[in-house]
Amino acid sequence: MSEASEPTNQPPTEQPEVEGQTGPSKSELKKRAKAAEKEKKAAEKAAKQQELAAQQAAAEADYAAEFYGTLPLHQSQSRPRQPRVDIASLPSRDGETVLLRARIHNSRAQGSKMVFLNLRQRTESVQALMIVAPEKVSKQMVKWAAGLATESIVLVEGVVKKSPEIIKSATVGTVEVEVSKLFLISGVEARLPFTVEDADRTEAEIEASGDQFNRVLLDTRLNNRVIDLRSQTNQAIFKIQAAVGDLFRQFLHSNGFIEIHSPKLQGAATESGASVFKVSYFKGGAFLAQSPQLAKQMAIAADFERVYEIGPVFRAEDSNTHRHLTEFMGLDLEMTIEEHYHEVMEMLDGLFLSIFHGLRDKYQKEIDVVNKQFPAEEFKWREGPEGTLKLSFKEAVDLLVEDGVAREELDDINTENEKRLGRIVRAKYETDYYIIDKFPMELRPFYTMPDPTDPTLSNSYDFFMRGEEILSGAQRIHDPKLLEQQMRGKGIEPESMRGYLDGFRLGCSPHGGGGIGLERVLMLFLKLNNIRRASLFPRDPKRLEP
Amino acid sequence: MSEASEPTNQPPTEQPEVEGQTGPSKSELKKRAKAAEKEKKAAEKAAKQQELAAQQAAAEADYAAEFYGTLPLHQSQSRPRQPRVDIASLPSRDGETVLLRARIHNSRAQGSKMVFLNLRQRTESVQALMIVAPEKVSKQMVKWAAGLATESIVLVEGVVKKSPEIIKSATVGTVEVEVSKLFLISGVEARLPFTVEDADRTEAEIEASGDQFNRVLLDTRLNNRVIDLRSQTNQAIFKIQAAVGDLFRQFLHSNGFIEIHSPKLQGAATESGASVFKVSYFKGGAFLAQSPQLAKQMAIAADFERVYEIGPVFRAEDSNTHRHLTEFMGLDLEMTIEEHYHEVMEMLDGLFLSIFHGLRDKYQKEIDVVNKQFPAEEFKWREGPEGTLKLSFKEAVDLLVEDGVAREELDDINTENEKRLGRIVRAKYETDYYIIDKFPMELRPFYTMPDPTDPTLSNSYDFFMRGEEILSGAQRIHDPKLLEQQMRGKGIEPESMRGYLDGFRLGCSPHGGGGIGLERVLMLFLKLNNIRRASLFPRDPKRLEP
Repeated sequence: MSEASEPTNQPPTEQPEVEGQTGPSKSELKKRAKAAEKEKKAAEKAAKQQELAAQQAAAEADYAAEFYGTLPLHQSQSRPRQPRVDIASLPSRDGETVLLRARIHNSRAQGSKMVFLNLRQRTESVQALMIVAPEKVSKQMVKWAAGLATESIVLVEGVVKKSPEIIKSATVGTVEVEVSKLFLISGVEARLPFTVEDADRTEAEIEASGDQFNRVLLDTRLNNRVIDLRSQTNQAIFKIQAAVGDLFRQFLHSNGFIEIHSPKLQGAATESGASVFKVSYFKGGAFLAQSPQLAKQMAIAADFERVYEIGPVFRAEDSNTHRHLTEFMGLDLEMTIEEHYHEVMEMLDGLFLSIFHGLRDKYQKEIDVVNKQFPAEEFKWREGPEGTLKLSFKEAVDLLVEDGVAREELDDINTENEKRLGRIVRAKYETDYYIIDKFPMELRPFYTMPDPTDPTLSNSYDFFMRGEEILSGAQRIHDPKLLEQQMRGKGIEPESMRGYLDGFRLGCSPHGGGGIGLERVLMLFLKLNNIRRASLFPRDPKRLEP
Repeated sequence: MSEASEPTNQPPTEQPEVEGQTGPSKSELKKRAKAAEKEKKAAEKAAKQQELAAQQAAAEADYAAEFYGTLPLHQSQSRPRQPRVDIASLPSRDGETVLLRARIHNSRAQGSKMVFLNLRQRTESVQALMIVAPEKVSKQMVKWAAGLATESIVLVEGVVKKSPEIIKSATVGTVEVEVSKLFLISGVEARLPFTVEDADRTEAEIEASGDQFNRVLLDTRLNNRVIDLRSQTNQAIFKIQAAVGDLFRQFLHSNGFIEIHSPKLQGAATESGASVFKVSYFKGGAFLAQSPQLAKQMAIAADFERVYEIGPVFRAEDSNTHRHLTEFMGLDLEMTIEEHYHEVMEMLDGLFLSIFHGLRDKYQKEIDVVNKQFPAEEFKWREGPEGTLKLSFKEAVDLLVEDGVAREELDDINTENEKRLGRIVRAKYETDYYIIDKFPMELRPFYTMPDPTDPTLSNSYDFFMRGEEILSGAQRIHDPKLLEQQMRGKGIEPESMRGYLDGFRLGCSPHGGGGIGLERVLMLFLKLNNIRRASLFPRDPKRLEP
């Protein structure tokens, strides 16, 4: 329409109007006619353009209808069943016209006729380019595409072509996509607190940039977890998290274990010591389970023989350390014992080795992705006939004393000395994974079976990775008389735990087990340094959201 | 020792003592000498018997040491590595000497020289007999064995022998075990509230017995769950429960889903409507998640593409029905949509068919065990090209109206009409499994995507088994503007759910999903009639223990 008032390039040929004349002069009439003609032409031109625009809009709506129907929102209007492809599959699709849904990781316009889009799906990315082409891609379309916000989700139709040279900014660098159609599926309606590129930046890159503000702090990440989780590193971390659970189940399933689900709402606190969360339960109160300990043991008393559970565990401990959460995933198991509790310890050892092997054999790609941002010495464990390193608590203390720690400090091994022991063990035995057996009875809960020959010791063990505890377990007392006696010894009134005791009065096989913290295993295997990075939406005394 | 004072069988040969004599008479002396002799012999005999008893005790301790060491309690004293066998494997071990740990299911002494023991391991049982045999099995041992309480756990050594005839009281009836050694591992220290035989009794057996007190009521079972769970029926139910979880994971894993774990502690109630449990959280408060809805959707917004979660779900609804628990296991999933929400509905349909097939193909034995106590028409579903029955909400209403229900009653389909519909559908379509699609928008939560052509309808569905809902799901709104609008429409102030809304402001793919109640699937597949039977330790408004 603006063109309607544009000047023509023709020079003025008319004579100036003469004042005082009663009627329009000839020249005036001629001028008016010409102006009318001009307006008419302009109107025609405008109409034609309007018509063209309408045709174009209709054509675009037709495109849209092809995918979405005529409504702007993706609301399941139609179902043409056109398959979408994964970016990872593109190298094998050279020459094909494909359809793919992806995020705009970033974009760069080149002049007004071309835009480069880095398209991302989870951990994979590819370069797409959109070039003005007659009847196919308009200049407006390129402009619009170049203006789409980072993190927008788009549907792209395009032809896969070999890249002239390897594209280093994409994970799939041998091909690129020449875009013929582009639709916006979901836009970005808020300022990005940081980009996914920011989230994936390594320490080396931050230092090279000389700008410390290029580092996205953990709290910022957790406050904006939805975008943080889109990073390559996080996509890899949570693939590995799921893998640990799968490997845990596979191993136990093949060893005759059955999965159980025990209630997290408890009528009474089932373990003394650790603090529990209280819940309003109708007109009364309840507690959140600190572990499935009692339920697992009752399953054993009910002849389930070998059980495991994967479920949340709640700890009302007001500690904001790098390795404590108020809610974490417990991988728990319990099994009957035929002769000796080392049957359980060896089962657990087999379980860990199977997890380590599984991760190394099938998830090395993801481990490498995480290592870029969290550099770590490769996690080491002992293979072959010598097997996993097993120390008694006493031997562990001796190693620390040899290393210069005062024996008086070592009634228990605190976090600092645990880490020191980890370093000693790695230097001496070349392993990041080991077991400490035979803990002093006074360090363990009342239900732990005492050693048969030395009642100050117990049939219990902890497992360690990189100098931090990841599993605690033991043979449990299955005899209600001994259990009562041990309760009294620890100052617990047996009547207050009657439900627990009753579980054993009708006959219970000897048994033992252990509980693994999923997030700890993940944190230590990958050396993430903070357990919050190993939890999808972590909970600590100060964080309940998102 | 009692034998020391026993009379000899020799007749008295001495003369009677004469009164008034100052010294012992000859006969008296002879008598005394004889008595002394007799005492000496008796003492010698007693000593010899003591020695024999000691030898026997030592021998028994040696037996014990062989298995347990010398302590009475199974406390991991030694580890001879003698393998234990399963009862199920006994038919292939004819002639072998085996060692097995089992419960005494019941026992029956036959005279003083023989005892029959019915030994049980989980769902399997076998007859063992212990017969007095010189140098091997003493009369005392038989007596002791016969006196062991039902449900005691014993370690048995014996020879497997073909039974003279099939033993009907045992599941393994072709062989029996001739016991040579028997040790008590764990005794019973309380009165049994009921036996496992009681727990497994069928309605037919109860009626045949003419004694209604032979029925163990559900509350009694749940109060004594540890013994109740030992029944064949329960062992089978919880094997099937674990199988449902395994089949769920297998199907989703093979369809590219990843397992996530979301927190149950929430800073704010994430869904309006249903009531939530409040938790004391340090100096503030928190809520227990009613579903992983928001977390699943945030995982989609974080590009996880296809996620599932198996975890507890908490509902503070004060309803004591046959199908409500305050804590149950949610099998939840969420996935992105390319074109139409029926992609999700079909994925869920495939999932259920895969679960049904898996159960039928691999767990028919367990299903048959449960059916003995809970008779049910075989669960039916539609196979082949016609596929699962899918009705729209409107079609479901029409079926009920045709059947005589007043249309005015059917703004929603209540529990009673749901069951009626189940009967109509079974009669008309020969299936116990079907889908109802296109629920009215007003029956669904604010985050449900409206139908594109009729805003009073929604892109949502429920799945049914035997006329009861087992899954509820929908396409969700991924557009924050529409989401706000819908919140307002339902009277929810968007600012009160800011965290939820923020999850979608940075771009989110169209998506949908659903949540399955594990216990409901189990209850309805097996027709257990009460959801408490499908939960290991059920929780309802009145039950928090065991």
